[in-house]
Amino acid sequence: MTNKPYNLVIVGYGGMGSYHAKLLKENPTINVVGTFDILEERRTASTVDGYKSYESYSAVIADHDVDIVLIATPNNVHKEIAIAALNAKKHVICEKPVTIYSEDLEEIMKVAEATERNFIVHQNRRWDKDFLTIKEIYDKTMIGNIFHIESRVQGANGIPGDWRHLKAPGGGMLLDWGVHLLDQLLFMVDSKITSVYANLSYVLGDEVDDGFQTIITFENGSTALIEVGTTNFIQLPRWYVKGTAGTAVIKDWSMEGRIVTQNFGVDIEAPKPIQAGQGLTKTMAPPSGAAVSTSNLPEVEPTMESFYDNVVSVIEGKAEPIVKNMEVLRVLRLIETIFKAAEANEVIKDFDAYKADPI
Amino acid sequence: MTNKPYNLVIVGYGGMGSYHAKLLKENPTINVVGTFDILEERRTASTVDGYKSYESYSAVIADHDVDIVLIATPNNVHKEIAIAALNAKKHVICEKPVTIYSEDLEEIMKVAEATERNFIVHQNRRWDKDFLTIKEIYDKTMIGNIFHIESRVQGANGIPGDWRHLKAPGGGMLLDWGVHLLDQLLFMVDSKITSVYANLSYVLGDEVDDGFQTIITFENGSTALIEVGTTNFIQLPRWYVKGTAGTAVIKDWSMEGRIVTQNFGVDIEAPKPIQAGQGLTKTMAPPSGAAVSTSNLPEVEPTMESFYDNVVSVIEGKAEPIVKNMEVLRVLRLIETIFKAAEANEVIKDFDAYKADPI
Repeated sequence: MTNKPYNLVIVGYGGMGSYHAKLLKENPTINVVGTFDILEERRTASTVDGYKSYESYSAVIADHDVDIVLIATPNNVHKEIAIAALNAKKHVICEKPVTIYSEDLEEIMKVAEATERNFIVHQNRRWDKDFLTIKEIYDKTMIGNIFHIESRVQGANGIPGDWRHLKAPGGGMLLDWGVHLLDQLLFMVDSKITSVYANLSYVLGDEVDDGFQTIITFENGSTALIEVGTTNFIQLPRWYVKGTAGTAVIKDWSMEGRIVTQNFGVDIEAPKPIQAGQGLTKTMAPPSGAAVSTSNLPEVEPTMESFYDNVVSVIEGKAEPIVKNMEVLRVLRLIETIFKAAEANEVIKDFDAYKADPI
Repeated sequence: MTNKPYNLVIVGYGGMGSYHAKLLKENPTINVVGTFDILEERRTASTVDGYKSYESYSAVIADHDVDIVLIATPNNVHKEIAIAALNAKKHVICEKPVTIYSEDLEEIMKVAEATERNFIVHQNRRWDKDFLTIKEIYDKTMIGNIFHIESRVQGANGIPGDWRHLKAPGGGMLLDWGVHLLDQLLFMVDSKITSVYANLSYVLGDEVDDGFQTIITFENGSTALIEVGTTNFIQLPRWYVKGTAGTAVIKDWSMEGRIVTQNFGVDIEAPKPIQAGQGLTKTMAPPSGAAVSTSNLPEVEPTMESFYDNVVSVIEGKAEPIVKNMEVLRVLRLIETIFKAAEANEVIKDFDAYKADPI
């Protein structure tokens, strides 16, 4: 045993569960005391990795030394595991998507309130450097007011793993990667959603979506194109963002990217028409050299506590959660709306509770 | 005078009119005998360029030596000029967009039929090398069956010129560049349109759209994202196309691009998870080296007559027009539908007459 003040058990010791174990090794406050998994091979993996494997989930929540349960199972069992842990007076960290249906999150939130325990969803990608860089450009109006955001992840490997191919455990790309991209978007754009259009892709023949494109419009006039793909053998940039004074692009997680801004107030030479295919175009000609400036992406200083530090601060009553359950609920309702919009092939409006209490 | 068999007058000697004059200098069959423009400065330009400037449009159509009238005026006067020319037994070449409203084209088509003259729209970008290359990849299933097409032009110069800023003469980017991209799309994808979603941009404060994104779905299951922008200081690729066996990209009119295809039936190593921001991902990891092959874009052999040669062949009864008026009408109706879909912010379905006679 260590002297770390909080003991945590990881429930579901698969890809994400073992990733959390690795991350928490470095953490000075949270101690991983064990794991629980229903699969024999994952129990063995846990033992090999040096973590006690609990015999049953009941044994986890009966263990008075356990302060925090971290849930990294398939999505359809998050709720029962979370509620049992909360009722046993444990705090809960839960992987994303928190639940498949928003009503299930609402139930969990009610239990958390009644038991006075904290339930915090691991929307880890709010801390991604690419996102924080775009958010900095957005917040500091470095390309003017941003009015259009394109956020994409495009893979070429199809849908990975086992349960992600299936509908019942909450597979599919909208719930898997979509939840991240939408969470980032709503964490950045402080405006009510006015409409959603969406197109889900089923080209791989799975019963769940293998990708999607959705166009979201906001009350403040801005628009977002959010896309996840798993059949993309060439990748478009991770971020492509348009402001009233320029454009920013981030290619991928290596943080290759740039900002190009318009030079105002200078005596700018008009662009010269270029030959473009079988025609001339002035509209699509490159601007004259003096008309624009290219710069590097800003270096972002971390201003938020890390996810785990924030969990501890919340448990100790020292901070609000960075990932608020109301925000997670709003994203989940947006996902439900995207499913509906795609199924009906219709634009859906007036569904976003925004800052009103949505429960 | 030359010995070229057909005499042509250019009506509207602006950017496109003078561009046609330059192109036709090389043409062995069509002789530019003069121009007409309502602006004194453009008449002077015509004289300087060596082309007789007619005193009036009546003088153009009264001239028995004139075989063809080429219309390169603002869009709102195409119809009256075209109908007068057809009634005077001239053939007519008309710049795009042919008219602002589809009913106007229908009227012209009726007059052309009644007068037994040819009316042909200059959809020159059907001959663009970038488009023909994508069409070759499409037709020859070089990346499998193509199920998603993204076709974009993105400028950084705002809306150019004078009348393109105004609604009455048919300004705006949907009518200007949109008509090309949509014409190319429908010339390539042989399927009925099942739905249209669209979002027009008015960020520059003009009374017309300064760009748009539209998502079109087809009966054959494929989708297209068509985009025109004039506030894009960084450009996404001109073409981004997904097939069941790969992806193709063309960066711009310089024809930089590539094809990446999936290698089937080989013993492919699964992709290794990569660190991506604050998480691991296998889904978005690059495929293993043996899993994909990269190749150059195909070299396209021209298989169609040139636009002007086709006009002459049509006049001489030797060929069908490559740009058929029914096709132009279908594109115009699609544009009208895009305007409607954007204004209502709704998905519009069941409007496309496709191969049925739409008049």
